[in-house]
Amino acid sequence: MEKVNLQGVKLFAPASIANISCGFDVLGLCLENIGDYMEIRRSEKAGIHIKSIIGQDLPLEAKKNVAGVAGLALLEAHNPQLGFEISIEKNIKPGSGIGSSAASAAGTVAGINYLLGNPFSPTELVPFAMEGERLACGSAHADNVAPALLGGFTLVRNTNPLDVCKLPTPLELAATVIHPKIEVKTSDARAVLKQRVSLEKAISQWANVGALVSSLYEEDYDLLSRSLVDEIVEPARSILIPHFVQLKSACKEAGALGSGISGSGPSVFAFSRGMNTAHKVAQAMHQVYEKTDIPFEIHVSPVKQSGVSFLEDIT
Amino acid sequence: MEKVNLQGVKLFAPASIANISCGFDVLGLCLENIGDYMEIRRSEKAGIHIKSIIGQDLPLEAKKNVAGVAGLALLEAHNPQLGFEISIEKNIKPGSGIGSSAASAAGTVAGINYLLGNPFSPTELVPFAMEGERLACGSAHADNVAPALLGGFTLVRNTNPLDVCKLPTPLELAATVIHPKIEVKTSDARAVLKQRVSLEKAISQWANVGALVSSLYEEDYDLLSRSLVDEIVEPARSILIPHFVQLKSACKEAGALGSGISGSGPSVFAFSRGMNTAHKVAQAMHQVYEKTDIPFEIHVSPVKQSGVSFLEDIT
Repeated sequence: MEKVNLQGVKLFAPASIANISCGFDVLGLCLENIGDYMEIRRSEKAGIHIKSIIGQDLPLEAKKNVAGVAGLALLEAHNPQLGFEISIEKNIKPGSGIGSSAASAAGTVAGINYLLGNPFSPTELVPFAMEGERLACGSAHADNVAPALLGGFTLVRNTNPLDVCKLPTPLELAATVIHPKIEVKTSDARAVLKQRVSLEKAISQWANVGALVSSLYEEDYDLLSRSLVDEIVEPARSILIPHFVQLKSACKEAGALGSGISGSGPSVFAFSRGMNTAHKVAQAMHQVYEKTDIPFEIHVSPVKQSGVSFLEDIT
Repeated sequence: MEKVNLQGVKLFAPASIANISCGFDVLGLCLENIGDYMEIRRSEKAGIHIKSIIGQDLPLEAKKNVAGVAGLALLEAHNPQLGFEISIEKNIKPGSGIGSSAASAAGTVAGINYLLGNPFSPTELVPFAMEGERLACGSAHADNVAPALLGGFTLVRNTNPLDVCKLPTPLELAATVIHPKIEVKTSDARAVLKQRVSLEKAISQWANVGALVSSLYEEDYDLLSRSLVDEIVEPARSILIPHFVQLKSACKEAGALGSGISGSGPSVFAFSRGMNTAHKVAQAMHQVYEKTDIPFEIHVSPVKQSGVSFLEDIT
């Protein structure tokens, strides 16, 4: 039922980690402590109108903005006569590799869906948000929008037709993410990938993906740790991230279950059992990067079990 | 505690399906209705002594026999002074692709372990049984011995060091297996595999493995069906199996969830929800093969939830 008495809604659109180790292009995860704040309000004027973006210099024209494009895709499927106004407080830096565009796209479609009385399930919202990703990076991938909308761990089995599974997430799992403030061009991140891989390594990769999924159901942190391996993409892409090898070994020494490249970088994530260890891992990452002249930010966060959160109704 | 009052044990050593679709080299499954009967008895004489093999012409010399080699590996690790005598009623045809050598190896080590009072867990028995596989096919793989020992679905994450997971198995899952009585040489089955595969297909494969594992936990037969896809090995190996394409489409029409090559062939398996459908699939397979001049056998079986079964103590 449409929430006709509501003028709008304030929400939290979470950051996310995609390309989790062996689950390149497939496994993603939603973060609790990092994300954008958004306000979605009804408008008399049909279409999507980006009212303001605080914190980043991004286009306000709806068709050039990921939130705008995602919102328009939803309206196109539901009712193009409707109009919504969007304000964004952008905390996730575009290009950081933790799903900045996905958060804007997911927040927009989740917020509009909420005001419309949830005509779409979270999974049905994924394709609309993917249109935002198509604008942001040229391909309509679901790696970040799926966890941002569904929460927890997600697996994208297929994008065409879309087939997304929500996986269980062990409650103690925590993430540490370092964002080295350098630019990794998507074109470079793609160029370093070999288009053919050895069958032997591919087998090892899918064995690890299977084991990782099992570890989530079993809450088996040891198996999760053993499965967080990527012998295919990480060796190629890590050359684009300064001090990657040192970061990885520092995380391990500090007690992390495993680590890898977040999205296509430059952020690097580590998973730990419990927030205490995740904070120790943050210190270890800090020690590696403080010796360099590269500016950086570090986030520590539990896994967010649900996707976009609604904070306040606007009446 | 060692079962000192027991002279021996009669047991059932199950057949198994390895290389399950996307889970090539990784996923295996234990069958309920097909297997060998074995009798393991204590002997005064140290070592393993193959007393008789009914149904197949196989070497009786322990070091040339998979059961012998597996048993000797166990004794070597436990107590080389002990001796056991083995009789085998071989129902699984060697070279059929449903784990004939694995059944002999698994049955032997499980039986000896039972008489010794289970000093080893089923998982700890896997490496001994793998030595039998090394004799049978030149590499110590766990694809069949893991399900034959642990039961249900198993995932071999790594062989060195060995890392095997038992996965849950939906109770209604049933298998139909057709064994076309032709020889597929292991060397041919290996030769047709390309040593490099496209990254795109590899990603699709590990997405399917992840989804397949999830489907087992969720008892989601639809997701299981969508995940039973192998775009890498099956297209290459299926050329060695006559009428494979017709078999596959006949299985699907008869209601199977999916189908693929069992082990390295020539057997072809199909999974169904429920034994009724599995029998319909058997009829469909029969119709495809009765038109050919290739002799064949068809088995229909539930998934066996546990591995080797102990049938009778010999006092």
